[in-house]
Amino acid sequence: MPRRALHAVAGASVAGAAAGIKSDGAPDVALIVFEKPTPTAAVFTRNRFRAAPVEVCLEHLPAGRGHIRALLVNSGNANCGNGAAGLRVARESCAHAARLLGCAPAEVLPFSTGVIGEPLSLPKLKQGTDAAAAKLRRNGWPKAAKAIMTTDTRPKAASVQFASGGRTVTVTGIAKGAGMIHPDMATMLAFIACDAAIAPRTLQGMLRHACQDTFNAASVDGDTSTNDAVACAATGRLELAGARGLAACAAALREVCMDLAEQIVRDGEGASRLARVTATGFGSDAACRRVAASVAGSPLVKTMLHAGDPNVGRLLMAAGKAGVPFRPERLTVKVGGTVAFVRGARAPGYTERRGERAMKADPVEFELAGGAGGGQASMMFCDLSAEYVKINAEYRS
Amino acid sequence: MPRRALHAVAGASVAGAAAGIKSDGAPDVALIVFEKPTPTAAVFTRNRFRAAPVEVCLEHLPAGRGHIRALLVNSGNANCGNGAAGLRVARESCAHAARLLGCAPAEVLPFSTGVIGEPLSLPKLKQGTDAAAAKLRRNGWPKAAKAIMTTDTRPKAASVQFASGGRTVTVTGIAKGAGMIHPDMATMLAFIACDAAIAPRTLQGMLRHACQDTFNAASVDGDTSTNDAVACAATGRLELAGARGLAACAAALREVCMDLAEQIVRDGEGASRLARVTATGFGSDAACRRVAASVAGSPLVKTMLHAGDPNVGRLLMAAGKAGVPFRPERLTVKVGGTVAFVRGARAPGYTERRGERAMKADPVEFELAGGAGGGQASMMFCDLSAEYVKINAEYRS
Repeated sequence: MPRRALHAVAGASVAGAAAGIKSDGAPDVALIVFEKPTPTAAVFTRNRFRAAPVEVCLEHLPAGRGHIRALLVNSGNANCGNGAAGLRVARESCAHAARLLGCAPAEVLPFSTGVIGEPLSLPKLKQGTDAAAAKLRRNGWPKAAKAIMTTDTRPKAASVQFASGGRTVTVTGIAKGAGMIHPDMATMLAFIACDAAIAPRTLQGMLRHACQDTFNAASVDGDTSTNDAVACAATGRLELAGARGLAACAAALREVCMDLAEQIVRDGEGASRLARVTATGFGSDAACRRVAASVAGSPLVKTMLHAGDPNVGRLLMAAGKAGVPFRPERLTVKVGGTVAFVRGARAPGYTERRGERAMKADPVEFELAGGAGGGQASMMFCDLSAEYVKINAEYRS
Repeated sequence: MPRRALHAVAGASVAGAAAGIKSDGAPDVALIVFEKPTPTAAVFTRNRFRAAPVEVCLEHLPAGRGHIRALLVNSGNANCGNGAAGLRVARESCAHAARLLGCAPAEVLPFSTGVIGEPLSLPKLKQGTDAAAAKLRRNGWPKAAKAIMTTDTRPKAASVQFASGGRTVTVTGIAKGAGMIHPDMATMLAFIACDAAIAPRTLQGMLRHACQDTFNAASVDGDTSTNDAVACAATGRLELAGARGLAACAAALREVCMDLAEQIVRDGEGASRLARVTATGFGSDAACRRVAASVAGSPLVKTMLHAGDPNVGRLLMAAGKAGVPFRPERLTVKVGGTVAFVRGARAPGYTERRGERAMKADPVEFELAGGAGGGQASMMFCDLSAEYVKINAEYRS
């Protein structure tokens, strides 16, 4: 459940519906409609194998110069690896929504998530779109959050308000994603709306920046699934008060992204613990990101996190395999703020008991200092459990 | 158990002993002794964080110009992350063995495998060395294979003989390694001896080449653990018959490495299925290796292998995230020799049933053809199971 109140965004109405794409009858179509063509920014997966809806988004965004009327999302089927037939389904679903809303097909962005390589039923998707369109309302965000879930165990939503020029500005978003214990299996979508007026190009830059240390630093690494996308619309009901208002809006957007990213990691398939790894002093931010990602992505670190076992040796192994040059004798490793490894060996004052206590924190904090100049990066990640294997071995059964 | 007879190698005697480094009293020290200084080649981990014995090997090999009298191995403790004290233990264990054998300390190579970051007891290691030295015999290979095990469920050994100039040449080796469901957690060691005469430099090239498509293509990726090493000695009892004899010897060495590598993957922690992925036509061998490694390392592919579920979508995802450019509509994916995906969509004749049948093979065969020129690479890998998580969450308890 969302941890805070979800504020409606003026100019946006939202709904979820069940179309029978999921075999269990759960909601599987979400619709977010803007009253008029609305500046919308989006970032997509960098996987070479892009799903049909991603291809269609990339056609529609330039066609409408970033002005969009609706986001149409289905869960239960990724519409990926379906060739020309998949592209046709994605395009015709947009055309169908456009007829309902009285707009151009290119003003609709399609998104899909679920199984790869199985045909997506156009009649079902159309029917779900009709059902969702009949239920659109300003406070429909929770329904949409439910309709985009796949292996998620709970819906994910976040909402932030701030004051600008005497008015209250709202940023509200929903996300889905759970199969992301490793960076290479993120299947996440996020949809965010804000009632401020922001030009498309500004909004795109703002979104890209907000994703960098949130979704892209959450052991999610949105660049690898076939369907990943984050879209953000600015409905323009409120003018922001100058550069300060814009900065406040960027901060609010980042806060919503961070909140959603953390919800995604916490709901990671089979996850029971959250951890944050911070790397500093490996020479550059990029080098620190590689070290942090190596730790966050290591199955051995993830299994020790699962066990609550402060096995510092696995942190050394993960740092060493990151491909970043450093001198082991200059490396300092902290677990829960306590120095565990320094000058090439276990720290004198460190005890297993202190380590075990640190492993009970939420999140568990790992810090690695390379001692080789500047740079800083953090990543959030979760543990690897037997439950994860069960979920992914049985996903299609 | 080794699947074939283990032939003794003239000039080498071998033993295993229990020194109490492992808490359960199982054998944990192995000793391989050569009658005289013997050309020995070795390849080591490329992890930045190298264990003390690896550092000492790198000192000793040039010092003796590649001529070695003994390989001293302990399991149960990796002697890594122990600073100056760890280096001292590694060096003094060599000095102790050298005194026993009447050679220089630099003629002994030390190897350790086990937990990282905990002190290795020098008295125990010395005592184990004494015990092993008292039991050295030509047919001691199986005892040594047992003494180097950690989470392995069975010892690993292989032996190949071939004729050269009317004489029978023998190549025999042992290996350990099980925590290698992912390339980043290989903790493997292998020790091989051959009774032919081979110059150190030739032997080093031969070993490096033999590792390339065996240990390094077995989802083991020896370059990432802190202790990985493969050593090969040539005792020089037989002269090889010219270039043809040398080629036959290189082939035999490769065969032993492949056999050991396959035994390692089959005994992967929690593994129940073996698979081979072959990538062709992604432009170069290096590009094909990246695609094959992306498939072999993907937790989602490994969990579907575990389930015996032919989820072709996950192969597409894994190929797409490899960072290698290709056109999805030119990609062809085969499962068990049957085309499952072609021209951007599921192959017309492909059925789930055929896929399920292919997933029962041993090994399961996946083929990805990029349709973008040349290149070829294969990797062996195993499935990811709940048992794997259990083993690695409880490793130190």
